[in-house]
Amino acid sequence: MMVQGIHRKTVWFEDGKLIMINQPLLPHRFETVEYTDYQEAALAIKTMVVRGAPAIGATAAYAMALAEQQGADLEEAAAVLKKTRPTAQDLFYAVDRVLSAAKTGTKALETARTIASDYEHSCRMIGEHGAGLITEGMTLNTHCHAGWLATVDWGTATAPMYVAKRNGVRFSVLVDETRPRCQGSRITAFELGEEGIEHAVIADNATGFLLSRGEIDLVIVGSDRIAMNGDIANKIGTYTTALAARESSVPFYVAAPRATIDPACSSGADIPIEERAPEEVTCMFGADLETGDPRTIRIAPKSSTARNPAFDVTPASCITGIITESGIFRPENIAEAL
Amino acid sequence: MMVQGIHRKTVWFEDGKLIMINQPLLPHRFETVEYTDYQEAALAIKTMVVRGAPAIGATAAYAMALAEQQGADLEEAAAVLKKTRPTAQDLFYAVDRVLSAAKTGTKALETARTIASDYEHSCRMIGEHGAGLITEGMTLNTHCHAGWLATVDWGTATAPMYVAKRNGVRFSVLVDETRPRCQGSRITAFELGEEGIEHAVIADNATGFLLSRGEIDLVIVGSDRIAMNGDIANKIGTYTTALAARESSVPFYVAAPRATIDPACSSGADIPIEERAPEEVTCMFGADLETGDPRTIRIAPKSSTARNPAFDVTPASCITGIITESGIFRPENIAEAL
Repeated sequence: MMVQGIHRKTVWFEDGKLIMINQPLLPHRFETVEYTDYQEAALAIKTMVVRGAPAIGATAAYAMALAEQQGADLEEAAAVLKKTRPTAQDLFYAVDRVLSAAKTGTKALETARTIASDYEHSCRMIGEHGAGLITEGMTLNTHCHAGWLATVDWGTATAPMYVAKRNGVRFSVLVDETRPRCQGSRITAFELGEEGIEHAVIADNATGFLLSRGEIDLVIVGSDRIAMNGDIANKIGTYTTALAARESSVPFYVAAPRATIDPACSSGADIPIEERAPEEVTCMFGADLETGDPRTIRIAPKSSTARNPAFDVTPASCITGIITESGIFRPENIAEAL
Repeated sequence: MMVQGIHRKTVWFEDGKLIMINQPLLPHRFETVEYTDYQEAALAIKTMVVRGAPAIGATAAYAMALAEQQGADLEEAAAVLKKTRPTAQDLFYAVDRVLSAAKTGTKALETARTIASDYEHSCRMIGEHGAGLITEGMTLNTHCHAGWLATVDWGTATAPMYVAKRNGVRFSVLVDETRPRCQGSRITAFELGEEGIEHAVIADNATGFLLSRGEIDLVIVGSDRIAMNGDIANKIGTYTTALAARESSVPFYVAAPRATIDPACSSGADIPIEERAPEEVTCMFGADLETGDPRTIRIAPKSSTARNPAFDVTPASCITGIITESGIFRPENIAEAL
């Protein structure tokens, strides 16, 4: 998608180099970083220069191409890469796919390009299937960041928006800031702005009220895991937005690739919820208003702690439909997407 | 209530001086400020050194006592004070009460002390009526700040907690941080911590999830206005908390003095909702993590704006009861409290 008027991808390979967007600097500074050493690329994954499961998968695959180019042992490189983010399913998938293709003589770079292109294609298809939901003059709402910077291009929840925009439909988006890490305010708002999509950030507290006042016509969010009964896990706060959407009869859609559906998970109750560090809630980071430098401030008293569940579960009963690369499914029929 | 082990009030009069807590410094620094000139006290109200309708009312009444002590014209002082915060009903009420009592020969300081004591008494009674709802081992939730620092003492939503604590009941409180201004994280957490009440701050996004998991037993919030049908207006985000509480069958109470009931307002639809500056959402203020100095940071891209409705309306159907100084009422019976 567009950044400063140029079509970019999150990660790509050019002239023997793995190049990616330095995401922690966003939205206050846009820079790319280049790697020729796979171990440095591994460190970049570990330190979250890149984030989002598909983006990490593509980066790891390209890092395998670097390893091959360096003449390193591919098995060893795979082991190093797999240690960077222990819970990222896409990371293991991408590294293993490069490795097994290499055993049958396929160059790592070729497999990596295929993997990146597959990710891009499925996001694009989510966009094509979902774009029809967006009609002229609508106001949309989204939570957290399920945009192109977490994938290779297009994103998931944002893909229908980017396709609708290209189809000439005018609409605007109210972006939940998504405390505590503010991925909505920082990253989703950045993406939409660079694509020229009209948007405004809102405190997560405002979403329910604006839904109740008829100021939101459609909600589209991403998902981290989809259970077989159509319950979904997503960033904390998705659940209350879904409840409020149902209360006001506003359609609530989830956009995710089929890989997000977990056949081993029968319902949302089976999904473990990660609790993260209290400092994400008691403190906040951003750009110093005067100097623009990265800065962390404390909000709560030093003696106060915080609870910080990172995800929640939205029951199928609150979900209008799930948009995948193979079409839109009612949540109770999500098994048909597999 | 307690601060650093000493019982404090928000504002008081001693040795010819109006003394109050310098609230913008909280929770990172605790200081009191003294005034002997009513015009300086008026400026303090205007610049929000003190905030919360009852606290402003008491401060304005004491400022009238300063004016009397200075030998200033009381009518003139009343005019100056009434200009400080044009929408604060308690301000007009307190200044006018001092003025009319003065006309019948009552000293301004005497009336001011009565006003402050009345505020204190009605908050204390809210506490007495509400304390019975809190039982051993409960986890409570509250939104925004409806604590003693917005009144003279005790607060409204916090009053039942402070009374229950004094009755020896052990409980803990999950405090919504309450974006965008984070009054929960900054002020409510400070109050509870200083009173020795176990608490943790949560992102507003987490409230619904924790309700759905049975981790919250009781919600108590304040209110800015109560309509005659039992709908209430309160800080943005109250509505979604109330929806989620109803969904999980968790009791949701509103605590407010009877003065909050507006006989001219038949339902929540009649309550106008203030929209505030977008910078409250796109930026954030707190204490620099390294130096402790006050600092503002930007979260969203410079090119992104924000919508910022400051209040929302919670329908009577989501409210279990309304706690006033004259007892607890079902929302549909709130007219009986008048």
